[in-house]
Amino acid sequence: MIVDPPTAPKAIEIGHRLARRTGRMHASAIREILKVASRPGMISLAGGLPAPESFPVDIVRQLCDEVLSEDGERVLQYHATEGYGPLREALVPFLAERGVHTSVDDVSIFHGSQNVLDTLAKVLISPGDVIAVESPSYLGALSAFDAYEPNYVMIATDDEGVLPDDLDRVLREHPVKLVYLVPTFQNPTGRTLSPERRVRVAEILREHDALLLEDDPYGMLRYEGTAPLPLHALAPERVVYTSTFSKILAPGLRLGFVVAPRALSRWMVIAKQGVDLHTNTLGQAIAAAYLSGGYLTAHLPKILELYHPRRDAMLQALENHMPDGFVWTRPEGGMFLWVIGPERVDGEALNARCIEHGVAFVPGRFFHADDSGSHTFRLNFTAANRTTMDGAVRLMADAARAMLSASA
Amino acid sequence: MIVDPPTAPKAIEIGHRLARRTGRMHASAIREILKVASRPGMISLAGGLPAPESFPVDIVRQLCDEVLSEDGERVLQYHATEGYGPLREALVPFLAERGVHTSVDDVSIFHGSQNVLDTLAKVLISPGDVIAVESPSYLGALSAFDAYEPNYVMIATDDEGVLPDDLDRVLREHPVKLVYLVPTFQNPTGRTLSPERRVRVAEILREHDALLLEDDPYGMLRYEGTAPLPLHALAPERVVYTSTFSKILAPGLRLGFVVAPRALSRWMVIAKQGVDLHTNTLGQAIAAAYLSGGYLTAHLPKILELYHPRRDAMLQALENHMPDGFVWTRPEGGMFLWVIGPERVDGEALNARCIEHGVAFVPGRFFHADDSGSHTFRLNFTAANRTTMDGAVRLMADAARAMLSASA
Repeated sequence: MIVDPPTAPKAIEIGHRLARRTGRMHASAIREILKVASRPGMISLAGGLPAPESFPVDIVRQLCDEVLSEDGERVLQYHATEGYGPLREALVPFLAERGVHTSVDDVSIFHGSQNVLDTLAKVLISPGDVIAVESPSYLGALSAFDAYEPNYVMIATDDEGVLPDDLDRVLREHPVKLVYLVPTFQNPTGRTLSPERRVRVAEILREHDALLLEDDPYGMLRYEGTAPLPLHALAPERVVYTSTFSKILAPGLRLGFVVAPRALSRWMVIAKQGVDLHTNTLGQAIAAAYLSGGYLTAHLPKILELYHPRRDAMLQALENHMPDGFVWTRPEGGMFLWVIGPERVDGEALNARCIEHGVAFVPGRFFHADDSGSHTFRLNFTAANRTTMDGAVRLMADAARAMLSASA
Repeated sequence: MIVDPPTAPKAIEIGHRLARRTGRMHASAIREILKVASRPGMISLAGGLPAPESFPVDIVRQLCDEVLSEDGERVLQYHATEGYGPLREALVPFLAERGVHTSVDDVSIFHGSQNVLDTLAKVLISPGDVIAVESPSYLGALSAFDAYEPNYVMIATDDEGVLPDDLDRVLREHPVKLVYLVPTFQNPTGRTLSPERRVRVAEILREHDALLLEDDPYGMLRYEGTAPLPLHALAPERVVYTSTFSKILAPGLRLGFVVAPRALSRWMVIAKQGVDLHTNTLGQAIAAAYLSGGYLTAHLPKILELYHPRRDAMLQALENHMPDGFVWTRPEGGMFLWVIGPERVDGEALNARCIEHGVAFVPGRFFHADDSGSHTFRLNFTAANRTTMDGAVRLMADAARAMLSASA
């Protein structure tokens, strides 16, 4: 057979071939900022990555070798969509310690908790369905949900998380399919929903026969204080609980898990079968061994010892340097805190000025679906060390002062 | 805080909360058969799993250790959605050898090729949009597409794959958004689209300004004969090419890749960001080392040496045992062949009878979106060894003969 390969065929038009939902998709708004922030020499308070020095590299190496030596053919083979048996089994007591009581049949493994957010929206949300989110909210969740063309309604928040009265109002006024919250060490604010409000939120969910997605990636990164009960413990029949190994083991393994009402988790598993058949088996086997071999128990304190002083250093630097008129959250854990400045300090303008001096953060406006929050910003305190962080915050403070005196 | 945990709260209703698309989802139709087929003592010709003894367990162990030792913090960290740089780079020459000419920027990594099928449908298919598929077709693709509520039109096939004239008719009569083909060693039939037809298919695509998804999971499992050019080589501007590491390395790593027109692959990457952020980094690093270290080149012949005699044994057993009136495909590679029996031998009834005697296959009806194919069946020839396979085929033949004489 002789074929004349077509020489440089003209690119075809794609625009008119796209699905309607694709119009709702967009590259993450903060992607450009993160790109700038990752330039050599830049001090980034912008990212949301765990510190690489927190990864138990040697433990993963050892566990990889073990699971491949002992069970190589199984961990390299296709597996059931629900997840790898030993991991699901190990998660039951792990979750129970944290107040999430479930059984092996009701916990499923996904390719990161992002994959849980996507799959839950996929089985629940038709175009125009309403999702209630706290304001500000986690951007990655909105980007998962957006593909299913929902409408959003905002629930007002303060320093203790969502306002129960406003949740009640939202559920009364709108036909809400799903409430989405990050109740502990929220991204972007670092805020935690208070224990009293959790009880009230569970009651309100019952009163309105509502369904809630509790996204808990940061709960185990607690540096002080006592963990409140997860919402799942207070209303297990109407709370879908998801968390991840990304902050306590390694995000590159892409391992998340979900506990959901039985009927719903069955649909999620069926949907996942179409999406990717199942989550990578090798990673699941490593995570199973990490939990059941006691490695998490041994390693987690090291992660906390790394992050705790960084959070303290960030709080101290803000205290030392920031001009009057700026306030910030004091999270007991997690990776972020939230700064609110005077209204005349625009977060994007301040960030642009800081970038010129080699420091980047994320302006808060990006986390508000309604474009509010222009004078807020998110700071990550886990990536940089104490000294670097102090210099970065001082630089931000100087830039803010300059903006304030220019506008005075 | 004292909380009365709700005692056994009543399960909430899920049905009315589901999205419209969820009505199109269903557990894989052959799941029950595969469950029966995996019972202890059962000889399964039903599965589609690679033989576990084909996995390069020791190589994976070694590469795992290497990538974690040399670059542990990077392979455990979050990564760009497009894929791990070294893997994308290694895929460019690998693909070029197979006739798929591309650049690093145009190849992206997904969580198995199933994840490619899902993501492409997600960005292209609005409810009611038309996908043209060959009949019979790969079930997993239909289950990925179904969630986006397409309508299907069938393209007729014979022993050389799709009939170009029928493809031409389908594209003329229907507003087809996407043509989906497995042109080489197709699942379920084992058929390969002939070189002449490939040229004609490319021309027809151009004549109708159509877009085609070329799914090529089995192309490298060739036991004899010469590989035809991929469709991508003949119309690169309108063919999305996808393949996988599942058959040449290990399916448990969930690694697929796609080469697509630039504008389309950008949308796929944006969609994937919402679905799971990126594919697991550790698996990608292992695959990169597997390709660039020459391990695939060394290991692939071993896989072929394992499967080739099994295919021969299956063909010989069919020749020896099957009664008159049965015909079957003689694939030069892949994992499956396709048997067509006399119309009065119902594939499901025959399978039920065989299962009683400890042998299972998959009735062909399941691969037909229009419920035809009642007297066809798919046999896998890579999982069982020669002796076992001969016994299994003889048993099938006896059962078929009994059915034929009962209906005579």
